[in-house]
Amino acid sequence: MFNQLGVIGCGLMGGSFALALKKAGLVKRVVGYSKSPSTTEQAKRLGVIDTAAESALLAVSGSDIVLLAMPVAATEATLKAIRHLIDPKVLLMDVGSTKADVVDAARRVLGKQLGVFVPAHPIAGKESAGVQHAEATLYHGRQVILTPLPETDATQLQKATDVWSALGCQVLKMTPQNHDAAFAAVSHLPHLLAFAYFSAVANQPSGRDFLTLAGPGFRDFTRIAASDPTVWRDILLANKAEVMAQSKRFRDVLDLLEQVMQSDDAQALETLLRQASEGRAQWQMGVARPR
Amino acid sequence: MFNQLGVIGCGLMGGSFALALKKAGLVKRVVGYSKSPSTTEQAKRLGVIDTAAESALLAVSGSDIVLLAMPVAATEATLKAIRHLIDPKVLLMDVGSTKADVVDAARRVLGKQLGVFVPAHPIAGKESAGVQHAEATLYHGRQVILTPLPETDATQLQKATDVWSALGCQVLKMTPQNHDAAFAAVSHLPHLLAFAYFSAVANQPSGRDFLTLAGPGFRDFTRIAASDPTVWRDILLANKAEVMAQSKRFRDVLDLLEQVMQSDDAQALETLLRQASEGRAQWQMGVARPR
Repeated sequence: MFNQLGVIGCGLMGGSFALALKKAGLVKRVVGYSKSPSTTEQAKRLGVIDTAAESALLAVSGSDIVLLAMPVAATEATLKAIRHLIDPKVLLMDVGSTKADVVDAARRVLGKQLGVFVPAHPIAGKESAGVQHAEATLYHGRQVILTPLPETDATQLQKATDVWSALGCQVLKMTPQNHDAAFAAVSHLPHLLAFAYFSAVANQPSGRDFLTLAGPGFRDFTRIAASDPTVWRDILLANKAEVMAQSKRFRDVLDLLEQVMQSDDAQALETLLRQASEGRAQWQMGVARPR
Repeated sequence: MFNQLGVIGCGLMGGSFALALKKAGLVKRVVGYSKSPSTTEQAKRLGVIDTAAESALLAVSGSDIVLLAMPVAATEATLKAIRHLIDPKVLLMDVGSTKADVVDAARRVLGKQLGVFVPAHPIAGKESAGVQHAEATLYHGRQVILTPLPETDATQLQKATDVWSALGCQVLKMTPQNHDAAFAAVSHLPHLLAFAYFSAVANQPSGRDFLTLAGPGFRDFTRIAASDPTVWRDILLANKAEVMAQSKRFRDVLDLLEQVMQSDDAQALETLLRQASEGRAQWQMGVARPR
């Protein structure tokens, strides 16, 4: 049980964490800060936070649990702004989709206080950004990846594990590097491809007409293209090398498929498609518990 | 009201059409044929068809409405097999995702009987192929594209419009060429990309581990990669030129995105992502009626 949650970045992720903690009875009050005052105000109006703070530092003041939930490129500046009030007993976490860059920023800024920081990435979200889409159940039944450092305090790591477990998450631990390699493959590249594909369709001469004909396959394939552009700008830049490596693998397979199409090799094409189809049909999303 | 529906290809699409027609009270009995006798048998066992025919020709015998619902490359051979029993009063339709190739096949085979054929493409489906996934509501609330020819009989065209409308579809008419250009963009290319992407992730050294970490974004982005490989083999080959042209557009945008990533141009990246994000957020799937 915590006394006060300080949320820095009152958007979909931070707002949902605040709602979930309240719903689980794990926190008495929530103080929130967002770069845009209107967002903080909206979060308060919606009951996502109890008190609007005028700075990140003020959101940390008096909090025994702090969540960083702004775009990842703002991590270093935010940590600098709050480090003076970070107590050794505070549990400090983030929810960033990249981990190596966040950990590097924490190393540079936190010094002796590095132990309180437990880097976290909950595998949850939706295409509708913003605190108005926050919901208490966003994390329920999802995986959360913690990427603790050698310096991470064992007590804080246990606290972090307990909090996410209490929200209905399955907690996994990985190194920041392994995390970033894996999520370049299963999350960052598909976002890049979805953004690229939607733009390519929409920005052609008949694009507007074509879009009126698109069906459920298109709807699901492009859902993530509606994701928050500032969040994804930061993720794609922070994990650029891994994303590029995954893009290269993707392009190689696309080249191969187009080669067999060009040569009208129906059998080879079917074999390649069947491999993907059977693999995807067998795949199941990792979940914390049956729903 | 029809006396007998002959379904050639008792899979997801043909089976769902049979169920929908029965549920709407538009047909007295359904005779079905599939290339694989076990599929026909299963369709009968599931109550999707009333009678299993031993050939395509026998499925047409006595039918006043006939639906071709096998992979598109089989159209010409199927039409050759059934043309002797095609009566001028029969409504003959297909459900293929490509239209120029199907129309060409019909022109070559049907001769004077071409007028009975109304090429149709219902914008519906799901990733689970097979008659066991057929459902009476698959077409409800969806668009269906008819691509009539100058030779198409006006009575048959009206009948086709009435049937799909009765199933809850919005009926649109286009030329086969415009249809294929549009669906290369909004359907065929995303399927190709989803197949390529899933294979690229799965077939790398850590692919199996990565897949256990994938979340809801991955799930939706790759749903269509589980589609039927024989159906998509035929579609991609039949509409190869248009799909390649769309792939080129997609690759150009992907190249651009990667260039701005490589040059760490955060502002340009955000602008490109925002354009896609806002466009996708505003897009709504065309539906026949609010649901």
